[in-house]
Amino acid sequence: MEPGEQPAPPAANGGPVVPVFFLSDSTGISAETMGNALLIQFPEVRFERTLIPFIQTIKDARRVVRQLDEVMDGPVTPLVFCTAAEDVIRAELHRSRAPIIDFFDMHMERVEAVLGQRGARAAARLHGVGDIVRYNLRMAAVEFTIEHDDGQSLRALEKADVILLAPSRCGKTPTSMYLALQHGLFVANYPLVDEDLEATAMPRPVRPYLDRCFGLTTTAERLTRVRNERRPGSRYASLEQCRWELRRAEHLFGDYRVPVIDSSTKSVEEISTLILQTLKADARERDRHSEGKTS
Amino acid sequence: MEPGEQPAPPAANGGPVVPVFFLSDSTGISAETMGNALLIQFPEVRFERTLIPFIQTIKDARRVVRQLDEVMDGPVTPLVFCTAAEDVIRAELHRSRAPIIDFFDMHMERVEAVLGQRGARAAARLHGVGDIVRYNLRMAAVEFTIEHDDGQSLRALEKADVILLAPSRCGKTPTSMYLALQHGLFVANYPLVDEDLEATAMPRPVRPYLDRCFGLTTTAERLTRVRNERRPGSRYASLEQCRWELRRAEHLFGDYRVPVIDSSTKSVEEISTLILQTLKADARERDRHSEGKTS
Repeated sequence: MEPGEQPAPPAANGGPVVPVFFLSDSTGISAETMGNALLIQFPEVRFERTLIPFIQTIKDARRVVRQLDEVMDGPVTPLVFCTAAEDVIRAELHRSRAPIIDFFDMHMERVEAVLGQRGARAAARLHGVGDIVRYNLRMAAVEFTIEHDDGQSLRALEKADVILLAPSRCGKTPTSMYLALQHGLFVANYPLVDEDLEATAMPRPVRPYLDRCFGLTTTAERLTRVRNERRPGSRYASLEQCRWELRRAEHLFGDYRVPVIDSSTKSVEEISTLILQTLKADARERDRHSEGKTS
Repeated sequence: MEPGEQPAPPAANGGPVVPVFFLSDSTGISAETMGNALLIQFPEVRFERTLIPFIQTIKDARRVVRQLDEVMDGPVTPLVFCTAAEDVIRAELHRSRAPIIDFFDMHMERVEAVLGQRGARAAARLHGVGDIVRYNLRMAAVEFTIEHDDGQSLRALEKADVILLAPSRCGKTPTSMYLALQHGLFVANYPLVDEDLEATAMPRPVRPYLDRCFGLTTTAERLTRVRNERRPGSRYASLEQCRWELRRAEHLFGDYRVPVIDSSTKSVEEISTLILQTLKADARERDRHSEGKTS
């Protein structure tokens, strides 16, 4: 170490904390997503992340280069992920002494080669308003989904793209919000309460829409823990009650062939991906049937 | 064209529709995000996107290779973006005749070089539950944010990380949901109604928390259009009323130095990024002050 240099702060495993920078000419969501997909492969290393979004002028870029080079003078080489699209901005950023992992540069050339044309290479707003029709659809979906959260409104259920069914506290709400916000789906979620679970038939309001229903389930242990946070010691939170509700819900789902997803092992992103894949497969199936009929 | 081949369907600009595949061993969110960041540079080309997530076995990979090679036999070369992390899966996928743009392969080597260690190269769940503490925080944030949507609850406002202020229909709700779901922020949103806007002081409930307040604004033209969808021809939706509300809101924001973001030109992702950057800058500022005091 040079005199005057600070030692790097120790990480959990005793190694140095590695500075990580995400550079972008827009929100940086792509740089973060792809960069983190790589960093997750190093579970032992501690990273200190800095997002620098909206790098849109040469002046912005020069300031970033100074910031990176300062870190290069420190004891730990930083990781820098970049998705800037404009050639002049990118060229400026690459003047830094820090090694830059550029998700745009070489991949863009390959895409251009396959398409046989040159890309715009302009700061593009992938996470901007972009396609205004699609953007407005997403915003409308958030509204619909909040209105139809937790069975609050059974109006306009026929407009729902997806209806999530589950006992209370199985993860319906966050999954609904994710599907609405990221995919523009109109989602209703319907809590299966005791009287629904005592019945042998699906609740009447959702019965006409079984083709768009999905069931969520979890483990009784997890459910009792989550419910105890809300109403400690209640019958509602008891292991026995949770077991009964989950068992009854699974019967209902089985009887009506409603696809079931376990939220105890899956994130909202994973649950949403599974739901979207099922919807697409169903649509393909329907297409095949209607083709069969008309041919 | 070979006999029996179907011509590619024409695109908007008369060119062929280009098939695009996103391959992943998990949700495919990274592959889609990064791939779309490249595709947006070709606004004239029409793409037909297919997501193939959860490719987790050699058998899965072989099925994908068959699917890709079938498309290769067609008239238009597909674009294939891949983020599979496991070497064996990736090797299998690369057997396809389709050109694969691999976001993982070469970048992983560079990250490994900088860190001086080999990554796990295992199917990792970036969008899985992952860090359970962070995941649970995000889920709790969604709950808090729904409870505090549209001024519904003024309880526990001191727990809010962010309070969004704006007249009705300026985009508070989707922004709140995005900040909660993606960043685990507890967001309250507070509608500025006529009586708030007639006053010269900030509404009492938010006054103790001005340091975490953000104002949203939009154009009167846009606001009147959005409100007319909901209550056509009402005073609430009139251009005059919208103008007055926005002008008054901007005065209030200015008087209290509340940062203002224009939702008419920015997406929820962009608004959220700006809010997060401001929060971070404020935190740095506070750190500097407290360092100044103690030194």
